[in-house]
This record gives sequence, structure tokens and C-alpha cells, in this order.
Amino acid sequence: MNTASLQLDTHGRLRHFLCIKGLNYQLLTEILDTAESFTGVTEQTVKKVPLLRGKTIVNLFFEASTRTRTTFELAAKRLSADVLNINITQSSAVKGETLLDTLRNLEAMHVDMFVVRHVDSGAAHFIAKHVAPHVSVINAGDGRHAHPTQALLDMFTIRRVKGPDFGRLRVAIVGDILHSRVARSQIYALNLLNTGDIRIVAPKTLVPAHAESLGAHVYHDLDAGIEGADVIIMLRLQRERMQGALLPSEHEYYELFGVTEEKLAAANPDVTIMHPGPINRGVEMDSEVADGPRSVILEQVTHGIAVRMAVMSMAMHHRKEVEE
Amino acid sequence: MNTASLQLDTHGRLRHFLCIKGLNYQLLTEILDTAESFTGVTEQTVKKVPLLRGKTIVNLFFEASTRTRTTFELAAKRLSADVLNINITQSSAVKGETLLDTLRNLEAMHVDMFVVRHVDSGAAHFIAKHVAPHVSVINAGDGRHAHPTQALLDMFTIRRVKGPDFGRLRVAIVGDILHSRVARSQIYALNLLNTGDIRIVAPKTLVPAHAESLGAHVYHDLDAGIEGADVIIMLRLQRERMQGALLPSEHEYYELFGVTEEKLAAANPDVTIMHPGPINRGVEMDSEVADGPRSVILEQVTHGIAVRMAVMSMAMHHRKEVEE
Amino acid sequence: MNTASLQLDTHGRLRHFLCIKGLNYQLLTEILDTAESFTGVTEQTVKKVPLLRGKTIVNLFFEASTRTRTTFELAAKRLSADVLNINITQSSAVKGETLLDTLRNLEAMHVDMFVVRHVDSGAAHFIAKHVAPHVSVINAGDGRHAHPTQALLDMFTIRRVKGPDFGRLRVAIVGDILHSRVARSQIYALNLLNTGDIRIVAPKTLVPAHAESLGAHVYHDLDAGIEGADVIIMLRLQRERMQGALLPSEHEYYELFGVTEEKLAAANPDVTIMHPGPINRGVEMDSEVADGPRSVILEQVTHGIAVRMAVMSMAMHHRKEVEE
Repeated sequence: MNTASLQLDTHGRLRHFLCIKGLNYQLLTEILDTAESFTGVTEQTVKKVPLLRGKTIVNLFFEASTRTRTTFELAAKRLSADVLNINITQSSAVKGETLLDTLRNLEAMHVDMFVVRHVDSGAAHFIAKHVAPHVSVINAGDGRHAHPTQALLDMFTIRRVKGPDFGRLRVAIVGDILHSRVARSQIYALNLLNTGDIRIVAPKTLVPAHAESLGAHVYHDLDAGIEGADVIIMLRLQRERMQGALLPSEHEYYELFGVTEEKLAAANPDVTIMHPGPINRGVEMDSEVADGPRSVILEQVTHGIAVRMAVMSMAMHHRKEVEE
Repeated sequence: MNTASLQLDTHGRLRHFLCIKGLNYQLLTEILDTAESFTGVTEQTVKKVPLLRGKTIVNLFFEASTRTRTTFELAAKRLSADVLNINITQSSAVKGETLLDTLRNLEAMHVDMFVVRHVDSGAAHFIAKHVAPHVSVINAGDGRHAHPTQALLDMFTIRRVKGPDFGRLRVAIVGDILHSRVARSQIYALNLLNTGDIRIVAPKTLVPAHAESLGAHVYHDLDAGIEGADVIIMLRLQRERMQGALLPSEHEYYELFGVTEEKLAAANPDVTIMHPGPINRGVEMDSEVADGPRSVILEQVTHGIAVRMAVMSMAMHHRKEVEE
Repeated sequence: MNTASLQLDTHGRLRHFLCIKGLNYQLLTEILDTAESFTGVTEQTVKKVPLLRGKTIVNLFFEASTRTRTTFELAAKRLSADVLNINITQSSAVKGETLLDTLRNLEAMHVDMFVVRHVDSGAAHFIAKHVAPHVSVINAGDGRHAHPTQALLDMFTIRRVKGPDFGRLRVAIVGDILHSRVARSQIYALNLLNTGDIRIVAPKTLVPAHAESLGAHVYHDLDAGIEGADVIIMLRLQRERMQGALLPSEHEYYELFGVTEEKLAAANPDVTIMHPGPINRGVEMDSEVADGPRSVILEQVTHGIAVRMAVMSMAMHHRKEVEE
């Protein structure tokens, strides 16, 4: 069973949301349009919507992340769902229960959705393959594989700033591509949206072997990589990688790949600056760039709620029709 | 004050839910019937019920258990109550506050119900004895004493599969009876329901001294113990008991008391297989049995929500009438 | 920017709630009156109020406190708000995100209110200064500086017992004044309400240098300090202070400053006994006093919910008018 057939139902609608790879242009656009309809709900004056009232959503986190958990919890609550937070490292894993037994037990409690975060690549797919027909799975990040809601909110943000025609855009992704589930998902999404020029900018040690085959142009020099860029997406530097020989020191990284106002002169004058957060100020970029007028880093966070509401309600909507 | 008068009001209705011992046939049946009415609510298409809207239920856990906490939290939310999770080992215990002061403080915040889990036998009774008149206490497991909601959901499951006449049933409980609060509660419940033949099957070291006086027949041999059984309830093997001399190795335990399809030949052909979970596969039973057509282990989990909704709403209903 | 202009809007209404110092008599009275209107809501029979439905309140705790967190969570839920609990020591702090970046990110998710607890004095003010216009900040205790909701609930409790005329009252605060954010906030509040005689009673080592300038009379002898007192507020003894030379042993403290029925003979016969909790029985007072007819310690806890509901809804009400 391939990814497309796993995350889509027979009518091509969203059943799970596991990775960008299994989507098509039409469905990706439909998700972004749905998210657009939710942007008002995240404003303060508008009350929450009752779309998922009475539904139970479980944040099933095998890897701690307050930040990501919070965005999913907020999205679920604004859809009026009930949310259970389960940190598996603290619970039944201790009692030696297998993953599948844990799933079966939660399913038996008639939960409706698992939001899964896991250190291992493929964990969300594995769970989606084995889950009961009435349960939807959302991938909230699995190993080095995918972080599809992050990629979606990035596309949503670019579309809001630059308009829907990605064909005329140069988008540069800067940082540790090799270890990044975010970059992988972004590249698939940018390809699906027919982005004119997708670039990855990284030290040689941090570029995956098959980079070109993903449809991206590889640069090892920041100036060349961001030349004429309309969008620059920086990745978060994982400090723990510093331990190995893969990465230079923070200081050296900043010298070579850190984005400053000065270096931005090479980019398109109305370049848009993005970062999934949290930022290491003075490493991936300086504060002038992070907080400057071209940065949409906080808009990304805002859009993250709307995009997650879209994915959750669409996957659940599928189910409703199955039941009818 | 005996248990009956502690957990029932003067009209014989549920005020607290502490143990099976203080119940009678009529009340036990009423709980099971009420749970029956909630089974629809736990299905996906049905919205939650507003029975406990505006009520505050506190999960007061002095012993960690994500699994049990989750089932009570879900039951409370499906009754539309607000839920607070308080892990006492992490909080005021550190500041040297006594248990009674902790209770008084939470009561003063006008909470309506405590769901209590504690390592010490009798903790829930102690709390119920000292709690304010407007607060109900539910025992979610206390030491080796009782785990009455588990026993209730087991009875509910048996009744659904085998029908309401327990008089014609042979029920065998297999495992470490001595240390099991679950077994103790099950035996009381089976007796209340006039079960025809209640058996406990365990190594000699794991049978309580007064076992026969509980109304159960004791077997030290699995084949004899499950002969003609209509229901087999396995208990979870607590691996920490292995440290002492009470239990043989896991392997030896499986050889002697582990249930396999082959050994099941001795039981009634339509025997029902039960386990409170989480299962140790290859210890209490093999996977063929656990996942086989006669296993209702996951149904037990599902019914656990409905049974807890029943107990919570009945204990709270008592209060409503007191207030009127 | 001084505290008054920080926590009040241009119409003199509550925008944040940071400390008592920035309030005036009229506003303090308005908060207490609003709390009065919520006392019914905290009773069991009354359902919650929909004042903050659809609002998101974040408990942002940089210092663990189950007790305080619980009261704010309950208050928020009874106003029908959604609550997120974020323990910063466990989350993004680990990833090296700065405090301001953490705030910006949460704001971008369109949260409406931060309830802040922090070990550092001034933390809530700092956050209020930098927070987005649409977000309100409530101080739930910062370092040794202030714990204004505790002081408010104390005033509310005194007003309920003694009536609105504080001018005729003698109020004695007993304990470690030097390290107490509670005492500091209480003294400001008692002054605002024109309390006739404010006394602090403590060993010389535990009185702040500027004590008299706060408008309080200093006593180092318990008998003299509580003579004729209408209200005695004891502070919790922080056992960790024992390590240093500041405090005598618990036993010695009890001998000198512990309140007993015998010592109470010096106070007004209808003296009211208060304590913010949790009590160290046999240290600050004996159980006869704590549980006696003149103690309102549990009423303080109850009123804490109503007072927090008042502060939260008033700060949010300001916002609503800004938006209109």
C-alpha cells in the first residue's frame, strides 16, 4: 500500500494526513483554501466553531514537544473537540505494552483521531496502517521523515504574501537539509505547487545524497543560493549535531550561512523571511532579519493553527460521510 | 461506620463508589443498566451528554496510571464535566501539606467529585469518610484492596456476552490473586450476581489465606481450574513480584498458568477470554488467545467508559436530589 | 512607565493585573464587588458562566505551583474559557528560546491572557510591558515582589466577615515578612482600603528595612503585636529559610510566633484567623486555631476562585471595548 492510497480514501479525499508526498495539487490547494476559512476563527473576537464537538482527539507524543503539542491542542479546542494529551514515554511503555496494544486500547475508548509525534521515521504511517477504520491519524513529525503540517503552514504563508502563482517564485531553503523532516516536506509541497525554482543551501555535509532528484537545486554558498530569491526559509540548527563532525561551530555556521541584512542584498528586494522556530538568534540569522519588516515568522505560527484546523476537520469530515 | 452505609445514602442510593462489597444485587444491576444506556454515547456519531455540565471532577492520583486516568477523564468529558488532573506526588505533598488539608482545600474550591487512586489500601474509604457532604468519591484503585470500576466493567462485559443469568456460569480467575485488588473486587461482584461457580487458579504462594471464605473454589492447576469454564479472566502478572520468591520466572509461569489455544480445549467451547490489560503477551496468554475470536479484552476497555459514566452520574445524581 | 499606567488603560480600567500598588480605592472596590457577583457561580448548583467562551488563557508557569495553577484553571473554566497549561521549565527554555520569543509565539496563536508565575521579581511586569495589545497579563506571583490575587482574596474575605469599613480594623500580619510577596501585596491592599491599624509581627531578621514606610507598625513580640487585633493573617514559614541563619528552629519559631488559643486571649474576642495555605500545623499555629470557629482559612480558598474570576473577566472586558 503506497502513501497516497493510505492517506486518501477511494474518492481521493483526506482520510489521514501523513505526508505531503501522497497529496496532489488539487487536494493541497483545497487544504489551503479550508485553512483560509479558519483564519477568522483564530482572531480574538470570533468564537470557536462547533465542527468537532463531541469528538475526542488524542495527542500521542512519543517525543516531547510543548510547542507542537500546543498548536494542535489549540486547533482542536477551537474546533470544539475534547483533547487528551498522552506522553507515551511516561505511561504504558513503562509497563511493557506494545505500540499496537496501546493503539487498540485507545481505539476501544472510541477516540476519533491520533495526532502522532515520534522519533522514528515512518511511525505515523505504521500507526495509520494499523488503526481502526473510524480513527484518523495526523503526522505531527516523525524522525527525519516528514513534518507535513509545518510544510503546509509554510505554503499557506507564502501564498498569502506572494499570491497563488508559485511558478514565478524562487524559494531557497537554508540549513541542515540532511537531518530535517521539515525541509523534506517543504520540498515536496513546493514541487506540488509548481514552484519555479527550488533551492537548497547547505554545507556539503548536510545535503542528502538524492537532493537533486527531489527537484531542488543545491548550493553550498549562501550568496549564490539566495541570489534573486523571493522567499528564504531558514531551518533551525540542531545544536546536538554540533557534537559530531557534521557541523562547524555556531560561530562558523553564522559566518557562512547566517542571514544578515547585509547578505540579504543578494536576494529579491521584497524577499520574504521564514523560519519554523524556535530561532537561534545570531546563528541562523541575526535579530535585525528575524524581527525586520520582511520576516513573516510569527505569521507562520498564526497560520499554523488555521492549517491544523483545516487538516483535522477535513480528515474528520471524510469519516462523517463514511458513517452516513 | 461500615462500607455500605458509607457509600450509600439513607435511601440506599450511590453516594460514593468505593468497593463492590458495600453494594447489593439491585444497585449493582442498576449501575449495569445505567451503563447500558451510555454505550451509545461512547460511539463516534453520538455527541456527549450534558448530565454533568458545570461540574468539576478532580482526578486525584497518588499513584501514577495514565491508562486509568485516561478512562476516567474521557468518561467525565463525555458527561460534559470539567476535569482537573492532580498528581499529588508532584504537588502539595512536597510542601508537607497533610492529606486532609489537601482535601479541605480542593473542597473549598467547590469541586464536586474526587476520583482517587492510591497505593495504600483503604485510602478512598478514608477520604470518603472525611469529605464534605457535597463531594462524591470514586475509588480508582487503592493498594491491594479494591478496584471496583474494573470489576464492574468486567461484570458488564460478561452480562453482554453471556446474558443476565450468572447462576449458570463457571468463571475462573487466573493469576496472582494474593496481590490483586482487581481479583478481590471481581470475586465480590461475581458473588453478588449469584455466579454458579467462582474459581481462582493460582500457584499456592499467590492465593490469599481466606480464599475459600470469599466464596471461591481454589485450584492450583490450570487444566483443572478452567475445565468447563464459561469465562476465564486472567490477571496481569506484576513483574516486580518476580524479584521475591513468590513467583517463578516468566517462562515457568507461562508453562504452568499461561493460557494457550491448546490448553483452552479443557474449557467450554464458547469460553470468553478476559484481561484487565495491559497484557504481557507470552506470559499470561499467547497472542493467539488474546487476539482470538473468544477474546473480549478490547470490549472491556470500551465498556469501561460507559461503566465509569454510570457510576459518576449516579453518585452525582444523588447529590442533586439532596440539594433540591 | 509606572505600574499604574501599565496595568490600567486610559480610562482607568483594568488592562493587566500585576500588583496592588498600581490600583486605587475605587478600582479595588470594583474588583471585590465583581468577585461578590461570582460567589454564586462557584457554588455547586449553579452552572458556569459563558463570559469568556472562546477565549484562550495560558497558565505560563516558570515556577511550579499545583495549588495556584489549579485555582486559576478552575476560575478560567468556570468562565468557560479554554485553558492551556505550559510549564516553561519543561519546554522551550530547553531549546534556548528567549522569553520574548516564547511570548511572541504564544501571542501569534491568538491567546488572550497569560497567567504568569515566576521566581524572579518583576517578571509579570516585564511580560506586560512587552505583550501584544490584545493580550492581558495576570500576575500569579513573582519572586519576592507581589502576589496580588492572594492579597485580593484576603481583602475580600475580611470584607465579608468584618464589613466594608476597614478604618476601624486592627490587622496583624505574622511571620516572615522579609521574603513574602504575599505580605507585601497585603500591606498595599490594606493601605488602599484605609485600614485603621496595620501591624507586622516578625523576628528582627525577617522584617524588611523599609517596613514602617509601607505604613505598617512593626512588632517583634507576638503578644504585643496581636493585642486587640481584629484580624490575624499568618504567613507560611518557608522551611528552606531554616538552612540559613535567618530563622530559628521550627520549634523555637512556634514558641515565639506560633499562634495558640492561649495566646489569642490578647486579641479581640471575635478575631478572624487567616493563612494563605498550605499550613504547617504546629509551626505557624496549632490545629485548634487552624480548625477553630474563628478561622476562615478555607473560606479564603473559596473566595480565591471568585476573585480570580473577577480579575480575569474585568481585564478581558477592557479588551472587548477596545475591539468594538
